[in-house]
Amino acid sequence: MSIFRPSESSLDSIREPVTQELKKFDGVFREAMRSQVALVYLITRYILRQKGKRVRPLLVMLSAKLCGEINDSTYRAATLIELLHSATLVHDDVVDDADTRRGFASINAVWKNKVAVLMGDYLLSRGLLLSLQYNDYYFLNSTSNAVKRMSEGELLQIQKSRQLNIDEETYIKIISDKTASLFSACTDIGAASTTEDPEKRNLLKAYGENVGLAFQIRDDLLDYLGRKSILGKPTGGDIKEKKLTLPLIYALHQSDRHEAQQALRFVKKGAKQKDVTWIVDFVRNNGGIEYAIQKAEEFATHARACLSSFPDSPEKQSLLQFVRFVIERNS
Amino acid sequence: MSIFRPSESSLDSIREPVTQELKKFDGVFREAMRSQVALVYLITRYILRQKGKRVRPLLVMLSAKLCGEINDSTYRAATLIELLHSATLVHDDVVDDADTRRGFASINAVWKNKVAVLMGDYLLSRGLLLSLQYNDYYFLNSTSNAVKRMSEGELLQIQKSRQLNIDEETYIKIISDKTASLFSACTDIGAASTTEDPEKRNLLKAYGENVGLAFQIRDDLLDYLGRKSILGKPTGGDIKEKKLTLPLIYALHQSDRHEAQQALRFVKKGAKQKDVTWIVDFVRNNGGIEYAIQKAEEFATHARACLSSFPDSPEKQSLLQFVRFVIERNS
Repeated sequence: MSIFRPSESSLDSIREPVTQELKKFDGVFREAMRSQVALVYLITRYILRQKGKRVRPLLVMLSAKLCGEINDSTYRAATLIELLHSATLVHDDVVDDADTRRGFASINAVWKNKVAVLMGDYLLSRGLLLSLQYNDYYFLNSTSNAVKRMSEGELLQIQKSRQLNIDEETYIKIISDKTASLFSACTDIGAASTTEDPEKRNLLKAYGENVGLAFQIRDDLLDYLGRKSILGKPTGGDIKEKKLTLPLIYALHQSDRHEAQQALRFVKKGAKQKDVTWIVDFVRNNGGIEYAIQKAEEFATHARACLSSFPDSPEKQSLLQFVRFVIERNS
Repeated sequence: MSIFRPSESSLDSIREPVTQELKKFDGVFREAMRSQVALVYLITRYILRQKGKRVRPLLVMLSAKLCGEINDSTYRAATLIELLHSATLVHDDVVDDADTRRGFASINAVWKNKVAVLMGDYLLSRGLLLSLQYNDYYFLNSTSNAVKRMSEGELLQIQKSRQLNIDEETYIKIISDKTASLFSACTDIGAASTTEDPEKRNLLKAYGENVGLAFQIRDDLLDYLGRKSILGKPTGGDIKEKKLTLPLIYALHQSDRHEAQQALRFVKKGAKQKDVTWIVDFVRNNGGIEYAIQKAEEFATHARACLSSFPDSPEKQSLLQFVRFVIERNS
């Protein structure tokens, strides 16, 4: 799963309709992590300090406001999601063996794997207990399903990266599970916190799924395009990890057999920087970049279409802006 | 958290009253882990193969049968617990950096940390979804609370092992959270699956808590006594990990200041085998072994007392036998 690190300025205007609510959310979230154990307290402060962009709570809030009036259950929904997301980030620190995340030393590096795993489990259990305390079973079901899909999706990707036989359909399944699942849980439970209307809820859920797919395709593209942010992943990181993503999958399919085999050999043996350059050119020459851009646009169009039946409002404008933002970002 | 590896023969007679039910449980559990993803399937088969003693499902079944008639919800309770327990074992493989667990190569060693963390999250989510599907909210609350306590307890232990300033009260709090919490969740939800009677349920829950405390004290003792099983932890493992457990805590408190400081110096610098021998003698000479044996007996007595109001039955006999088993085991 990738870290969402959009530029602050464009997100600010997207946040506009729920600025107050997001501020209040910060307090609720802080409270939800509270622990008597000093070490836990220390780590939660650390998590709060490097807090990221709060994209997921933002999606919960905007979806909720689009469908009705934000209320206490909306804050709990956002808290559940952010606890879960923090848990997966902490676990990812183990998973990716990342030395830095968002420019800070990862929890893993500072506290070692042991603490990272335990802390992730702790955050997850706090989310579960919060939802159970208020009988938020719908939220719980939606997010548990997202956890299942996220872990299964990542495991499928690992499996496929060993086999190197991934096709476009499998790729879409993987990114739907590992990334879009949590986006759609955000918009799903956000809407569920303010409306009973099944049609509205389904539309928001589908919006989240599609924007999540567009997000991940863009993320995978940035590995080939290069990122503006100096803190971002180096270009070709996915290739080095033997992750076959859409630009390369398409190029392998379009190119002649000889060239495709050469590309796969580079990936298989563990590509050096020189090989990465070759592969990036190979992808570019075989239309992989353009194709992935077009695919992200397609999902973005689907996402926008999910909002068309809602009357205009600042929230709707923000959700539309968010789609654009996702497919245009450079870092 | 420690692995429970009792000798097969004595457990067999404890299992007697629920042999059929445990057999059926195996099928239910297998089904609950099923996945379309080949890699997940492979790992679940691996988990099933090294399946351990099924102590937790055993406790669920015996508690349920003591309070009423085992039914479908009892199987779901046992499945939830075993999924959760498997998840924590898989995560522990990361946590402990264990190369072997139960004599098999750990999932971590075979599949690397990445897969271990994801697989743990996957198993956890399967448990959550199963409970949500059947509205087993009481089970979910009890086990989520256990997860919170387990992670907080382990984190507190890590914190204290850095500070080396642990007293008996803190030690009991730690082992209650990290170990007894799951034992009491087993007996709590087992009873809840077959009776509404709050008194019976409270008694079973307290039985689990006390037997769990006795279990962990015995486990910590075995680090000083040595284990029969060649596959077990080497003596002094806790000392090398800077874990201060009851025998040493007591000895530090009893000994003169000079000796105590010497012992702490050995622990702090990372004890070698020679230092371990010195510390084990120090503990023995200052009554730490006897004291811990006596404490385990006390909790065992509390556990037995929780069962006294139940009429005699094969289930009751098994739960009583289990207490004895826990404090007498040598591996």
